Amino acid sequence: MIANQGELLKQVNSPEDLKKLSPEQLPQFCQELRQFIIDLVSVNGGHFGASLGVVELTTALHYVFNTPYDQLIWDVGHQAYGHKIITGRKDVFYTNRMYGGISGFPKIKESEYDAFGVGHSSTSISAALGMAMGSRHKGIKDKHHIAVIGDGALTAGLAFEGMNHAGMEKDANLLIILNDNCMAIDPNVGALKEYLTDITTSKTYNKVKDEVWNLLGKFSSFGKSTREIVAKVENAIKGTLLSQSNIFEALNLRYFGPIDGHDIDHLVSVLNDLKDIPGPKILHCITVKGKGYKPAEQDQTKWHAPGLFDKVTGEIKKKVYTVPMPPKFQDVFGHTIVELAEQNPKIVGITPAMPSGSSLNIMMKAMPDRAFDVGIAEQHAVTLSAGMATQGLTVFCNIYSSFMQRAYDQVIHDVCIQQLPVIFCLDRAGFAGADGPTHHGAYDIAYMRCIPNMVVASPMNEEELRNLMFLAQSDEFQSGHQAITLRYPRGEGVMPDWKKPFSAIQVGKGRKLKDGEDIAILSFGPIGNEASKAIQNSPYSIAHYDMRFAKPLDEELLHEVFQKFDRVITVEDGCLMGGIGSAILEFMVEHGYSAKVRRLGIPDRTVEHGEQYQLWAECGFDAAGIEQTVAEMLSVVTV
Amino acid sequence: MIANQGELLKQVNSPEDLKKLSPEQLPQFCQELRQFIIDLVSVNGGHFGASLGVVELTTALHYVFNTPYDQLIWDVGHQAYGHKIITGRKDVFYTNRMYGGISGFPKIKESEYDAFGVGHSSTSISAALGMAMGSRHKGIKDKHHIAVIGDGALTAGLAFEGMNHAGMEKDANLLIILNDNCMAIDPNVGALKEYLTDITTSKTYNKVKDEVWNLLGKFSSFGKSTREIVAKVENAIKGTLLSQSNIFEALNLRYFGPIDGHDIDHLVSVLNDLKDIPGPKILHCITVKGKGYKPAEQDQTKWHAPGLFDKVTGEIKKKVYTVPMPPKFQDVFGHTIVELAEQNPKIVGITPAMPSGSSLNIMMKAMPDRAFDVGIAEQHAVTLSAGMATQGLTVFCNIYSSFMQRAYDQVIHDVCIQQLPVIFCLDRAGFAGADGPTHHGAYDIAYMRCIPNMVVASPMNEEELRNLMFLAQSDEFQSGHQAITLRYPRGEGVMPDWKKPFSAIQVGKGRKLKDGEDIAILSFGPIGNEASKAIQNSPYSIAHYDMRFAKPLDEELLHEVFQKFDRVITVEDGCLMGGIGSAILEFMVEHGYSAKVRRLGIPDRTVEHGEQYQLWAECGFDAAGIEQTVAEMLSVVTV
Repeated sequence: MIANQGELLKQVNSPEDLKKLSPEQLPQFCQELRQFIIDLVSVNGGHFGASLGVVELTTALHYVFNTPYDQLIWDVGHQAYGHKIITGRKDVFYTNRMYGGISGFPKIKESEYDAFGVGHSSTSISAALGMAMGSRHKGIKDKHHIAVIGDGALTAGLAFEGMNHAGMEKDANLLIILNDNCMAIDPNVGALKEYLTDITTSKTYNKVKDEVWNLLGKFSSFGKSTREIVAKVENAIKGTLLSQSNIFEALNLRYFGPIDGHDIDHLVSVLNDLKDIPGPKILHCITVKGKGYKPAEQDQTKWHAPGLFDKVTGEIKKKVYTVPMPPKFQDVFGHTIVELAEQNPKIVGITPAMPSGSSLNIMMKAMPDRAFDVGIAEQHAVTLSAGMATQGLTVFCNIYSSFMQRAYDQVIHDVCIQQLPVIFCLDRAGFAGADGPTHHGAYDIAYMRCIPNMVVASPMNEEELRNLMFLAQSDEFQSGHQAITLRYPRGEGVMPDWKKPFSAIQVGKGRKLKDGEDIAILSFGPIGNEASKAIQNSPYSIAHYDMRFAKPLDEELLHEVFQKFDRVITVEDGCLMGGIGSAILEFMVEHGYSAKVRRLGIPDRTVEHGEQYQLWAECGFDAAGIEQTVAEMLSVVTV
Repeated sequence: MIANQGELLKQVNSPEDLKKLSPEQLPQFCQELRQFIIDLVSVNGGHFGASLGVVELTTALHYVFNTPYDQLIWDVGHQAYGHKIITGRKDVFYTNRMYGGISGFPKIKESEYDAFGVGHSSTSISAALGMAMGSRHKGIKDKHHIAVIGDGALTAGLAFEGMNHAGMEKDANLLIILNDNCMAIDPNVGALKEYLTDITTSKTYNKVKDEVWNLLGKFSSFGKSTREIVAKVENAIKGTLLSQSNIFEALNLRYFGPIDGHDIDHLVSVLNDLKDIPGPKILHCITVKGKGYKPAEQDQTKWHAPGLFDKVTGEIKKKVYTVPMPPKFQDVFGHTIVELAEQNPKIVGITPAMPSGSSLNIMMKAMPDRAFDVGIAEQHAVTLSAGMATQGLTVFCNIYSSFMQRAYDQVIHDVCIQQLPVIFCLDRAGFAGADGPTHHGAYDIAYMRCIPNMVVASPMNEEELRNLMFLAQSDEFQSGHQAITLRYPRGEGVMPDWKKPFSAIQVGKGRKLKDGEDIAILSFGPIGNEASKAIQNSPYSIAHYDMRFAKPLDEELLHEVFQKFDRVITVEDGCLMGGIGSAILEFMVEHGYSAKVRRLGIPDRTVEHGEQYQLWAECGFDAAGIEQTVAEMLSVVTV
C-alpha cells in the first residue's frame, strides 16, 4: 500500500533526483515529504514526531551534500524516515518495521546511504569521527562526515567523549548537526539542556550586556562617544562569548548557530557555507519535534511513536476489547513501585530518560521527590543508584535490557563488588519486537548471571513481577548484600486481574506448575506461557517448572528434575550461549547427572525485527516450536 | 616494617588527631606524610605520583571536613594513600596491595572513611550525587558529599553524565574537587584538557581583555574616567566569563578557582568558605603529580607506579636476571602491531588512555599518525574503531579486560551487529594481581562469547599471541564479517625467544599439546602453562589440548576428546559461570556425550588482591590445584 505522493515527491527516488529540484521548490517538497510520512505512519505505525521534526534538515542535507559519498549518520535513527524515503526506499517504506520489511533504523546492509547502523543513542559523533579519521588515513580530503544528533542524545557520556576527542583532531572533516528540540522521548533533562536554551535565548549574552550597560550608564555624561564605546565593547563581548566561551568552542569545535531548522532556504545556504570550513564544527539547529502535525507538536511524548491514528482527526486508535485485557508489564512495574513506596519510605526510582517507556512516570507524578529521570545516562543512573544505596535507600533502577549494556561496568564495579542491594528492573528483556536487533534484550541473562553478588530473576506473569518486586525491597533482601535483576519483556502479560495482594517468594526458589512423566520443561520468565500452551496441545505427559531465578538456581528443584527425568527442555527468551540453559547444564554436570537436554532460546546470530511472536516462532521457542521439540525428543530411542 | 615517622605524623592516627594540630603545623605535617609515602612505596611498591600530588589536598579535606560523617570519594582511588594513612591505616600501610593486606584503593569494607569503593575512573561525581540525594531524602542538611576527581578522569562520559545531572539538583550538597594535574597515567589528552589549561592561564579572559583594551584605547582622550570605565567593564566581563560562561557554570555548577593545590593554608581557608555555599559546586585545584619527589615530578608516567626504588638516588630497581627472560604480553602486542603495520597500511591502533599500560606507545612513537590515545573513553574508543572499520581500516583497539566492561554496548551495538572486523586486544584478562577485584578481567569470556559475530581467542604464549594478531589482520579474517577478542593477561609470558616468524592459525582450531590415556585437560590461554606443569608432575597419563578459541569452539577436537575420554577438566583464568567450560558443556550435551567434567576457573565470588599465582592457588587452578583435581577425578570409581 503506497500512499499518494505529491508532484515533486513523485519525481524523487534518490538524492540525485532531489538535486534536480530548484531551491524554490524545496519548501513544497518538504511539505509533500512530511505528508507522505504522516500518511504512512498513521496506518502502519512507527516512530513519528522525530522524523517530522527533521524533514527540512533531511532535505537540505541530501540537497547540499554528495551522499552517499559524503557520509551521513543519524544518531538514534528513529528520525530517519525522510532519509529512507529520499534514498530509494520510498516504495518499500510501507513495510517499515514489519517482519521481513525494512528496518525502522538506518542499517548498513539495507542501503549504501546508511553510513552507520544506529538504534541506541549518542554513537554518531564517535562513528563520524572514526570515518573522518579513516578518510584522512586514506588521504581523502573532499569527503564530508556528518553526525546529526539530538540534544537529548548529547547528554550521554559517549557523545561527550566523542566531542572531547573530536576537538583534538583539528584536520578531521567532521560536521556535527545539533538537532535541538528539547526532547528525548520524554522532555530532555539536565544542565546541558538548560544551557542550550540559554544560548538560544541569549540569556548569557544579555546578562553581560545588561551588566556592562549598568556600569556604563553611570557615566552617562559622556554622550554619543560613550554609546559608541559601549556598542563596540558589546560586540567584542558578544563575539567572544558566542565563540570562545561557548561550551562547544571550549571543546575546540567551531560553533555556528543557533538557526531555525525548519527554514529550508537558510539551511541550504548555511550548509553550503559549512562545506568550505575545515575541521570539526557544530551547527546548532532549533527544531520542533512533530513539526507540521499539530497534535504531535502539542504532546510530543505521546506522539513519539503513537501507534495507528486517524490522520485527519488526530485520534490515536486504541484497540477495543470486549473482555478485560492484561496490562503491560511496564505498567505493573509503574503501579507496583508506587504501591510499595507508599509503605516503604526508603524506596526511590531512577530512570535514564524513559519515564513513559518504563512507566516510572506514574511514580514521578505521584511522588515527584522520590522518582528521578536522569536523562540518557545509563552509566550515571547505575552509579547514582549505588551512591543512594550506600545511604540505605532502596533503589529501583529501571533500564531497558539492551540499554543496560551501557552500564555493565557500573553494575559490576559500583554495585556488585560493593554488594549494594540495588534493584535493577530490565524492561524489554528478550525480543523487543519491531525495534529489532539493536533493541533486543538478548544477552542480559548471560551477562548478569556471571557477576558475583547478583541475583537474576524473571516473573512469568504480572503477579510474579509484583511478588519479585515485593521480595527485592524487603528488609531481608536489602540486608543480604546482593543486587537483583528483574527482567521482563515489552508488552502485555497474561493476567487481566493482576492486582493481587503481595505474597512472599524466597530467593532462588522456582515452582512446579505441572506434573508429568515423559519429559520436563524448565522455563524462565513469561516465555513459560508459550511452554504452557505447548503442553496443553501435546499428547505427551509433560512436567513444567517455572525456574523464576536464573541465579541462584533452585537446586532442590533441579535435583528432583534430574532424578526423575532423562529428557529435559529449557526455554528462555534470551541468548543460548551462557543463558539459563547453560546454567542448568553447569548444575547437571557438576552433580553427575546426564540427561538429554535441549536448550531453546535466542540462537547465536543477529535476529532481525518483527513481532515478538514471529521471532519466537522463527527461533523455535513459541508454543509450536516447543511442542515440536518435545515430539522430537520423545520420538528418539534412548542410546 | 613500619617506616620512621615525623613528630607530627606520629601523633596522627585519625582525622580527629589531625584536627588537634594548629594551622601553622600543617605544612610540616604534609612534609612528614609525603616522606612516609615515599619511604613505604620505595620498598613496597604501589602507586606513587598520584598520592604525592594530593598530600595537601588530603590533609586539608580531613582537617576541614567532618569525616567520616562528611563523605569523601576519591575518584580512581590510587591517590588515596595519604587518606588511608590519616584514617587509621598507618600501621598496616606496609601491607598495601599485598595478598591478605589492605587494598590499594578505597574500599567500603576496609574503613568507614572509605565512603565508596573505587578503582575504575570517573565514578565519583555520580556516587557523591547519589549520596547527597540520599541525605536530602532523609532530611539531613549538614552533611557534605565530596568527590575528588582528576582532569584525566573528567574526560570519561560517566563524569559528564554526573555533572549534567548534578547541575539540576540545585539543593544537593555536592562539592566536586577537580584535581587538575594534566595527567592520567600518561599525559591527559582531549579538548577539555586544553580548555582547563586555558582557564588556568586565563587565555580566554586575557583575550577579551585585550580586545576591550584595544577598542577603548582608541578613545584615549577620555583620560582617567575612561580608565575607570575600562576597569569596571573588565571586572564585569571577568566575573561573567569566569562564572556564567565557564564550562562548569554552563552546567549549573558553581565554579571556584583555579587555586594552588599545594598551598595548604589557602586550601584550608577556601574549603572552609565552601562549606557554607549550598548546592553543587566545583573547586578547581592545580597540582603536580609526584609533587615533592623530583624524579617523579620529572617523569610522571614512569613514576605513576614505579615499582621498588632507591628513594635517595631515585633509581628504579630492575630485577637482574642471568638468563634471558620472557617479555610481557603487552610488549609482544606493542612490538608486533608495529611489525604488522609496517607490512599492512590499513592497520591503526587505538587506546583509551593506556599508551604505556598497553604498550601501544611503541606504535605511537614509531607511527604517530596511525596510533591514537583517545583519553579515558572506552565507549568512544570502540565506536570510533567501528567508524574506522566502516572505511576499510584494520583497527586494533586495545582495552584492559575490566575496562572493556565500560564499552560493552558499543561492542554489541556498533561493532558486532554491524559485523565489523574490529580487533579487540584485552590486556589484563584474568586475575590482574595487586590491583584487586576492580581490575580483575574475570568476565570477558562470558560476556564476549554470547555476542553473535564475535570470535573469542586467547594465546597460550607469546608466539601464539603474534600468530593470532597475524590472523586477525589478515585479509581473510577482515573480510569475514566478524570481530575478534584476543585476551591475554598482565605480566610476562613464557618464551624468552619470542620473536618467531608468523605462522597461520585457522579460526576455531585448537591444538593437541600432548597425548594421554586417563583424562583430558582442555585449557584456554596462558593458564594452560599451569596445566602443563601439573601434567609434568602427575603420575597419570594426561592428554592436554590448548583450545585457543572459546568461540567458535574446535568441534573436531572436542569430538575427539569426548569420544576418547570420560573424564575431562577445563581450565580458564576467567569466571566459571558462562565461561569456556560452560561452552564446552553446551557442546557436550548438544552432541549427546556425557563425560564427567570438572571446570576450573574463577568462582562466583569477589576474589581480592594478591599476586596472580596466589590467586590461582586460592581458586584451585594453579598447577597444584589442577594436579589435585586430576587425582580426585581419577581416584573416584565411575558410577
